[in-house]
Amino acid sequence: MNSPLIISAVQQPCNKDRQTNLDFSIARIREAAASKADLVVLPELHLGPYFCQNEDHHHFDLAQPIPGPTTDVLSAVAKELNIVIVSTIFEKRAPGIYHNTAVVFDKDGSIAGKYRKMHIPDDPGFYEKYYFTPGDIGFKPIQTSLGRLGVLVCWDQWFPEAARLMALAGADILIYPTAIGWDPVDDAGEHQRQLNAWITIQRSHAVANGLPVISCNRIGFEQAPDSEKGIQFWGNSFVAGPQGEIITQADSSETKVLTCSIDSTRSEHVRRIWPYLRDRRIENYGDLTKRFID
Amino acid sequence: MNSPLIISAVQQPCNKDRQTNLDFSIARIREAAASKADLVVLPELHLGPYFCQNEDHHHFDLAQPIPGPTTDVLSAVAKELNIVIVSTIFEKRAPGIYHNTAVVFDKDGSIAGKYRKMHIPDDPGFYEKYYFTPGDIGFKPIQTSLGRLGVLVCWDQWFPEAARLMALAGADILIYPTAIGWDPVDDAGEHQRQLNAWITIQRSHAVANGLPVISCNRIGFEQAPDSEKGIQFWGNSFVAGPQGEIITQADSSETKVLTCSIDSTRSEHVRRIWPYLRDRRIENYGDLTKRFID
Repeated sequence: MNSPLIISAVQQPCNKDRQTNLDFSIARIREAAASKADLVVLPELHLGPYFCQNEDHHHFDLAQPIPGPTTDVLSAVAKELNIVIVSTIFEKRAPGIYHNTAVVFDKDGSIAGKYRKMHIPDDPGFYEKYYFTPGDIGFKPIQTSLGRLGVLVCWDQWFPEAARLMALAGADILIYPTAIGWDPVDDAGEHQRQLNAWITIQRSHAVANGLPVISCNRIGFEQAPDSEKGIQFWGNSFVAGPQGEIITQADSSETKVLTCSIDSTRSEHVRRIWPYLRDRRIENYGDLTKRFID
Repeated sequence: MNSPLIISAVQQPCNKDRQTNLDFSIARIREAAASKADLVVLPELHLGPYFCQNEDHHHFDLAQPIPGPTTDVLSAVAKELNIVIVSTIFEKRAPGIYHNTAVVFDKDGSIAGKYRKMHIPDDPGFYEKYYFTPGDIGFKPIQTSLGRLGVLVCWDQWFPEAARLMALAGADILIYPTAIGWDPVDDAGEHQRQLNAWITIQRSHAVANGLPVISCNRIGFEQAPDSEKGIQFWGNSFVAGPQGEIITQADSSETKVLTCSIDSTRSEHVRRIWPYLRDRRIENYGDLTKRFID
């Protein structure tokens, strides 16, 4: 991977008007490029409000093909600014088959690859199993001019398996576009535990695999369309180095282009002093493919 | 698992005279019992100094069978105090086959089970591959009167696979006896990153699996026998709940019987709000048994 690598995570609210919203994201990408960023990450499904707060078949109208109108726009932006962009699109693949898909644009504007979200959540307010067919590409890093990007999406971040498989397949960095927030009904203690757990599990993927991690979340309160409920997206986008050390982190409410430099030669160093990949007991890991061992 | 469960981790130095040292540990177990502890954990290889700082075949004389003289003593203590004890012994299994083995004593003094360290480190000052044959029992929780203990040892803590396999096999709690410390030659920044990484990765196992975690480390500086080097064992033994939240934590130098209560009904609750085990993509995890994907 290029080193040093300047990366930006765009922590932003995602508003209702798609064009206004996309224009806002593109303006932030321009800011990142002005800061000499090589790579910019947008939050998960950044084209609008998080529509999975209820199950409504009209929401399938939000989906679009890849390539399609949004990827055409972002391709042009990537090429113009000579920057790698990680976007997440509600993908219409075929009638009745929709995915939550990360798309990586290389500096020349080409689509370097895509990743279809593998782990699909479903709990009150996050009805993703209704909308998203589980990904079938698997855990494959996307080769770009900067290196191999291990792009995963949101709920994937809770699964050490996903990070490990990306590392074993040669990822140089792990990237998590995210839309996660608090239920305002929960108390402050629960909010803190959830946020800390979210940061902890992603930092742990850095530690376990000796890789830097970028996590990019949205901010803002979004009201559910059909109830009094809603989600307070908690921001806290961050970048961690390959020992899990926080390099930079946003707070829970600021719109921010979070930019920092990553020394990607550190992964090699860290994997020498912490040679976990050497010591995995692969002959005893077979049961990881089981649901449970009754 | 019993709930609430009162558990103690004995953070202690490990001194040269085995009997003095064991007596010290037993006095701490008595303290734990006086605090109504149901379960007490000793640091890894608590019978003496960490002998893996060099490779010396005389050190194999330190090993003993299981059951053997030390387990006989700890069995009696467990029975007398009606307490579950987790100890770690340098096990002599057969000529030329030695293990780093955790032994669990149930309240009746019986050996409930053992776990032979699966992941064996080897780096300067930690020459464990010389001494310890890799475990062949696998990742099996140990059934006790308190519940199923997912006992792992030190280096195992860096491997999410180990924690996951224990969880899938029905562990109610994860327990890490440990001997880990700083190289005094490293600077303060590196010390802090290493300690934070160690706490982060173990908390992440709580998060990923919805289980409480006990980590019990030794303290004190131990000089290497054949060089100017040595290890400053960093303590920081801690107990975390099933969202990775720290319940209690010792500092880097205090001898302490770290005692707290665990509400083990919280695992059920946390696994309902964070149903990761439901969503694992087991059909896509096969490559976890590969060394690397070239």
